[in-house]
Amino acid sequence: MADKQMQNANKNDQIAQLLSDQKAKLFRREYLDLHVHEQAQIFSDLDRTLRSRVYRYLSAEEVGDMFDAIEEEPEDVVRYFKEMPVQYAAKVIDEMYTDNAVDILAYAQNKDLTHYLLALPEERSAEIRELLHYEDKTAGALMTTEYVDIFADQDISSAIKDIREEAADAELIYYAYVVTNDNELIGVVTLRDLLTNPEETQISEIMTEPVISVPVDEDQTEVAQKVRDYNFVALPVIDYANKLVGIINVDDVIDVIDEENAGEYSGLAGVDTEETPENPFQASLKRLPWLLILLLMGMSTTTLIDHYEVLISQASILAVFVSLITGTAGNAGTQSLAVAIRGLSNSEEDRRSGLKTIFNELLTGLFAGVTTGLAVFLLVGFWKENFILGFVIGISMSTAITVATVAGSIIPLIMDKVGVDPAVASGPFISTLSDLTSVLIYFNIAHLFLSFFLNN
Amino acid sequence: MADKQMQNANKNDQIAQLLSDQKAKLFRREYLDLHVHEQAQIFSDLDRTLRSRVYRYLSAEEVGDMFDAIEEEPEDVVRYFKEMPVQYAAKVIDEMYTDNAVDILAYAQNKDLTHYLLALPEERSAEIRELLHYEDKTAGALMTTEYVDIFADQDISSAIKDIREEAADAELIYYAYVVTNDNELIGVVTLRDLLTNPEETQISEIMTEPVISVPVDEDQTEVAQKVRDYNFVALPVIDYANKLVGIINVDDVIDVIDEENAGEYSGLAGVDTEETPENPFQASLKRLPWLLILLLMGMSTTTLIDHYEVLISQASILAVFVSLITGTAGNAGTQSLAVAIRGLSNSEEDRRSGLKTIFNELLTGLFAGVTTGLAVFLLVGFWKENFILGFVIGISMSTAITVATVAGSIIPLIMDKVGVDPAVASGPFISTLSDLTSVLIYFNIAHLFLSFFLNN
Repeated sequence: MADKQMQNANKNDQIAQLLSDQKAKLFRREYLDLHVHEQAQIFSDLDRTLRSRVYRYLSAEEVGDMFDAIEEEPEDVVRYFKEMPVQYAAKVIDEMYTDNAVDILAYAQNKDLTHYLLALPEERSAEIRELLHYEDKTAGALMTTEYVDIFADQDISSAIKDIREEAADAELIYYAYVVTNDNELIGVVTLRDLLTNPEETQISEIMTEPVISVPVDEDQTEVAQKVRDYNFVALPVIDYANKLVGIINVDDVIDVIDEENAGEYSGLAGVDTEETPENPFQASLKRLPWLLILLLMGMSTTTLIDHYEVLISQASILAVFVSLITGTAGNAGTQSLAVAIRGLSNSEEDRRSGLKTIFNELLTGLFAGVTTGLAVFLLVGFWKENFILGFVIGISMSTAITVATVAGSIIPLIMDKVGVDPAVASGPFISTLSDLTSVLIYFNIAHLFLSFFLNN
Repeated sequence: MADKQMQNANKNDQIAQLLSDQKAKLFRREYLDLHVHEQAQIFSDLDRTLRSRVYRYLSAEEVGDMFDAIEEEPEDVVRYFKEMPVQYAAKVIDEMYTDNAVDILAYAQNKDLTHYLLALPEERSAEIRELLHYEDKTAGALMTTEYVDIFADQDISSAIKDIREEAADAELIYYAYVVTNDNELIGVVTLRDLLTNPEETQISEIMTEPVISVPVDEDQTEVAQKVRDYNFVALPVIDYANKLVGIINVDDVIDVIDEENAGEYSGLAGVDTEETPENPFQASLKRLPWLLILLLMGMSTTTLIDHYEVLISQASILAVFVSLITGTAGNAGTQSLAVAIRGLSNSEEDRRSGLKTIFNELLTGLFAGVTTGLAVFLLVGFWKENFILGFVIGISMSTAITVATVAGSIIPLIMDKVGVDPAVASGPFISTLSDLTSVLIYFNIAHLFLSFFLNN
């Protein structure tokens, strides 16, 4: 495996060298022989001089195919367009699949965008303009308009003829969507259906209906869930009048799944793990904002503890258990939060009603809290030979765990209702909140029993 | 949306009612009209009596198709096989795609497995037996043997004829793999290629070579990465002699991506978020093991703090800042851990060498630590009007953050090297470790400056 990668790396270097040496013909031969994914990888490593040679050596169509496979951020790819002559850039855009082109053009400056759109064929420019309107993270923003559509009254041989004609442009030809004259979506046939039935069969006889589809304003999480559920390689998108407006391909759905997961994960850790900056200084700059925000949030707990300094000076043993209580309650809160966020990211139908979830979490917190409290009561009681102290720690911990568990499930629900993405850093937020309540609970209970553990 | 789900739920109930009422014919009509995903959803909600009616009303082929879409855990599905007569179960297994059948049969008792294998056609039983041997989480365990293969010296029309014939059984017909007489994989053509070229073209002229493939013992993470990179809907699997042994479909890759992400996420939270138990008592039982382990790990920090109780009784102000320092260092450790685990889950080629990573994290930790330390020095200094105290807190926090950041990157690296999955609960583990070192660092530094903050 490592050997093969080494070979690839060498090969990539050799091809880049051909560019440096201005060997256009040899470069074309070697480069175009690669899969577009590999072409894109090589391209992403080039400097500006070499990139401009690529634009001269390759046709806009060839660059367009390669750009469909590029994995850089759209903010970066849009800069490549600026390096090209406008006419060339427009041709590259024209060659790309509409959904990919639109993802990138969303980051173009208005002035540049206007230039490209003017240079494009009118129909194409209208398509792009329309797709640019869809809200980010919806089905509309994910879909492409290059699909295959056929009519119910065609027979299989005529449908296959249509598919053949559309095959060069369509992003996916394995499903053909059946529409009315009004473009209303009424069925779907797979290429498999077409190949396994007699040529003279009417499409209406073999099409699957109703078609599973998503509305154009559907959230991308739901889109991903539907593709998961039905194991489709593409999903049709319809407007409010049930008209077919585009399809979403499975590779774009995988990107969505990765994006959502990274979001949840980053939220729990309080750091964006997606882009890894090259140098340690940049890395620390990325982590510092959250670290400092968390520090400030932590200061609130500190000032609360400070409030009880007199109590601590009278009974220093109390200080020993603060971390244990806040830590364990924090862990319980994080567990409950993780379950809640995963639950929210599941499709609507799996969600239980809010109140029931909260009640369930309250009971879960109580069970977990009482058990953990009992354990710590025994641990501390025997260790310090002081069961009153054990009782105070145990009861505080039970209460703190229950509160943290409920908070861990309520807060993401509230955030979701208010329209804030609960996955964004709610992890650290729950910890702080649970720290505060734990400290309050602990010192107030301890105060009631103060006489039992005054400093001797 | 909600309305539509309500309708679906009602419809599902109605269909289940047809079973209760023993209306076999009506049940067949309504049930078989649904997409297999929906059929499976209804089936999963039935009790044993109703399930046994399904086995009577539907043919083994119909149940097999539905079982391909079932989303329950294999441990549960294997129990359904036990409810059926052995011959019927074998027919269901025969109808299912091999990869799905094998996933489930991996959980069958040996005795049952033998019965099923004996009842299956010999070829089929051999296929299943072979697939059962592949190690979990490898390409071999993910792949199916129902692919389409053709020869390089065929022309397109004969290839399409072959595909037509295999279409009923193959799980995916959109790619046809080109093999030699020895079954060596030498190329691939898509159905698109076949439809857009003249019928008399030789396959050798249009096939893509070399083929991107994975070895049968490849880790599933790498498989997923390849499908992401190349946007394939299927990936061929080869053995050590470059012979085609199976294909992996994109829907199984999505399951892998979900599984890996859930693992990482659960690890960070210290709770398995995948299966959501029905009642709060079970939920708390699932969370308790980790909560108690974390409690015990937390006790180690507590006994360490206890060690410094005399110091605290002399200067209770010190107790106020313990949580702030351990908390912030813990956050820094979690950030670094999250980045490290994400890094490990990326494909091999993206990984930097271990030593370089650690050195980078050391520098990142230093930058972040010094900045945060400086902030807390000023915060505490002004708040308590005591810059010596601020200095002690600040320098302790800088050191603790640096140590936690490095630990957060080293520990998963070590776990990965030793062969333990670093995603499993390393989050809570890092927190405890960072708590311990933070407390040690803090009290030792504080001790040096004790005279400045003795209780008055």
